[in-house]
Amino acid sequence: MAEKFDAVDVIRTKRDKQRLSKDQIDWVIDAYTRGVVGDEQMAALNMAIFLNGMDREEIVQWTQAMIDSGETMSFAGLSRVTSDKHSTGGVGDKITLPLAPLVASFGVAVPQLSGRGLGHTGGTLDKLESIPGWQAEISNERMMEILEDPGCVICAAGAGLAPADKKIYALRDITSTVDCIPLIASSIMSKKIAEGTANLVLDVKVGSGAFMKDIDMARELARTMVDLGTDAGTNTVALLTDMSVPLGRTVGNALEIRESVEVLAGGGPLDVVELTLALAHEMLEMAGVHDADVDAALKDGRAMDTWKKMIRAQGGDPDAALPTAKHTHVVTAERDGYLTEMDALAVGVASWRLGAGRARKQDPVQAGAGIEIHAGLGEKVAKGQKLFTLHTDDEDRFERALESLNPGIAIGDEAPTLRSSVVLDRIS
Amino acid sequence: MAEKFDAVDVIRTKRDKQRLSKDQIDWVIDAYTRGVVGDEQMAALNMAIFLNGMDREEIVQWTQAMIDSGETMSFAGLSRVTSDKHSTGGVGDKITLPLAPLVASFGVAVPQLSGRGLGHTGGTLDKLESIPGWQAEISNERMMEILEDPGCVICAAGAGLAPADKKIYALRDITSTVDCIPLIASSIMSKKIAEGTANLVLDVKVGSGAFMKDIDMARELARTMVDLGTDAGTNTVALLTDMSVPLGRTVGNALEIRESVEVLAGGGPLDVVELTLALAHEMLEMAGVHDADVDAALKDGRAMDTWKKMIRAQGGDPDAALPTAKHTHVVTAERDGYLTEMDALAVGVASWRLGAGRARKQDPVQAGAGIEIHAGLGEKVAKGQKLFTLHTDDEDRFERALESLNPGIAIGDEAPTLRSSVVLDRIS
Repeated sequence: MAEKFDAVDVIRTKRDKQRLSKDQIDWVIDAYTRGVVGDEQMAALNMAIFLNGMDREEIVQWTQAMIDSGETMSFAGLSRVTSDKHSTGGVGDKITLPLAPLVASFGVAVPQLSGRGLGHTGGTLDKLESIPGWQAEISNERMMEILEDPGCVICAAGAGLAPADKKIYALRDITSTVDCIPLIASSIMSKKIAEGTANLVLDVKVGSGAFMKDIDMARELARTMVDLGTDAGTNTVALLTDMSVPLGRTVGNALEIRESVEVLAGGGPLDVVELTLALAHEMLEMAGVHDADVDAALKDGRAMDTWKKMIRAQGGDPDAALPTAKHTHVVTAERDGYLTEMDALAVGVASWRLGAGRARKQDPVQAGAGIEIHAGLGEKVAKGQKLFTLHTDDEDRFERALESLNPGIAIGDEAPTLRSSVVLDRIS
Repeated sequence: MAEKFDAVDVIRTKRDKQRLSKDQIDWVIDAYTRGVVGDEQMAALNMAIFLNGMDREEIVQWTQAMIDSGETMSFAGLSRVTSDKHSTGGVGDKITLPLAPLVASFGVAVPQLSGRGLGHTGGTLDKLESIPGWQAEISNERMMEILEDPGCVICAAGAGLAPADKKIYALRDITSTVDCIPLIASSIMSKKIAEGTANLVLDVKVGSGAFMKDIDMARELARTMVDLGTDAGTNTVALLTDMSVPLGRTVGNALEIRESVEVLAGGGPLDVVELTLALAHEMLEMAGVHDADVDAALKDGRAMDTWKKMIRAQGGDPDAALPTAKHTHVVTAERDGYLTEMDALAVGVASWRLGAGRARKQDPVQAGAGIEIHAGLGEKVAKGQKLFTLHTDDEDRFERALESLNPGIAIGDEAPTLRSSVVLDRIS
């Protein structure tokens, strides 16, 4: 078959800072999916996009071409309205776990098609797999059943959704073209639009532990994704939330499940509760459930009941003991003072090095590995007081974990100014 | 073996407009040659270099790393001093053919390790292969013998010289990263420095038929290459020469051999003679042969004798009839007037489409294909007068060749201002 374009010309167009036409974008994504455009050509094009950008129309077309590369789903047959949430990923970000059952307990369907963790941010599926018996892979039919009752599902996204995105994402990962707004926005939104949710809340993280280190960049990413969703007929809202410090008091797989269950039991760290409630509020409002008392649903056990049903629906035992790591190491305060720094990236990388995350797709993760945080940013601490407990199955991992953790922690004489809220901004 | 660097970090460095260190450059070129860095990673790095540039020190190190990727040669054992010439490639550029024997006839050794044509510019080896019996591939020993007597050799460059450059060049060709000064300069100079010539004259073409369309870009490329050569201990001079119109009156393989032999017989087109004499003068001066009467050596048959010996030394018969194409098509003037435009690129692409050049490395070329130019730029022509004769073995190629040729030709009422010389500038 004669090809409509030549990859060399498409690359040259973007290299020379010109707009890619709709036809060029449709062709290059399709030809790459078919293997006619090579990895080296798509890598060069991605770098040209990284450095020269894409305008709004190009991003819309790039996203649509990735959607068109595979199948799409529809939740139109459900009796419930769907509200979905997507986080750009952060350290200690277990919000999906209490959030999905909380929102579902108000009669809204919450489909959370998730991925696994790569690098220093954890993966929701990795966390849930620390629950004995729980299975990430379920059929589409089973997913629809669970979305009717109990109303929320967290499972692995099928390979058929936006296959071009999967191929391009793997390429970006090895060619330093990940943190680029047009490419991040189109990657996330192609999957979410292909999934077919009616409503979508985006949790765009900003700070050292996130892709976006800078609030203006995060705002631009959020704005780009909200526009993409809106144009595609998906109600989309974004919250910009702080990721300069870890979320909550645990980082790691089973450790984060434990903390999530505390939140579902009406307790848990204040920042996790605050963000869970803020996101639940957005998801419910979009689904037409106004002025829901979400706080009460955490306190009175409704969210917990939904959580247990959801875990059981995928073969898990919500009451079973969670795995623990073989070895622990306690880090204590070296002096009296205030905890003036607790860098999210330092903590995330340390947890990853302890075995909670993976460097390559095929690597296993340790269910029990991770970090417990005993003192929060700004807290007054005394010399010798416990700050962290590190968990791992391999004792020799402590050293490299501490190499990452220690430079991210500081104790000073003055109490630092703390953020007033985890939520920094809202884009709709 | 643990690798010293990670390709992702090296790519990110250049992506973020930072300098690549010597160690990073050495590693990435070596690791790419070994296959540890993938094509997709080198493609992303090349695009980042294309868009963010390299400074002089980086270009020197990039060039040296490519030299170090393979073997180097030495002409130190020869009784003659070596002077080499390299052209960045143009339409109708057959200068090497009369130039090498002309310079050799003054006792200087001229090693011309050449490549084949790709795209609209012809390849010197392709041209010589139209001579019955002539062989491009010879051993190093045989090359050294020929360089002693008759003193000049035009042959295929061995695969052992700068293998990293060969691999990177093939990649650049399919990823739109060819026309980038740091990458062009390092590609050319890594091969020339690895060859080990003592003196080098660069013919940097500028105009529509050349890589460099713009004189300032060409000057920068020339300056970069002269600096690279000088730093590496190779005496290097560059001439900037015009490539807005084809050189001489023929474009194609056997057609250009015929014209070259005319020059060696003391005749030929004035622009070809002018550039041959200018380059010969530079090569001889650098080799210590001062005030040579190069014009006389063309007129009195000395250069022709050396040519015939050179062709015979590689199995060719310099007196055999040259191949001709099966079909010809004559283009005539549509009106009276002055030939105001004859675009080098239009003529080059037309000749390529007639079968004189190749689109892919593995394609064959037609020995007889090409274009004869009967009227030069600025000449007064009468309606119906012959302007061009097109030659090809495949009659159905005329149409697409004319689609390229016709828009590049114009006849007007006023005589155009002509260049005063083919040589536009000299950089030393």
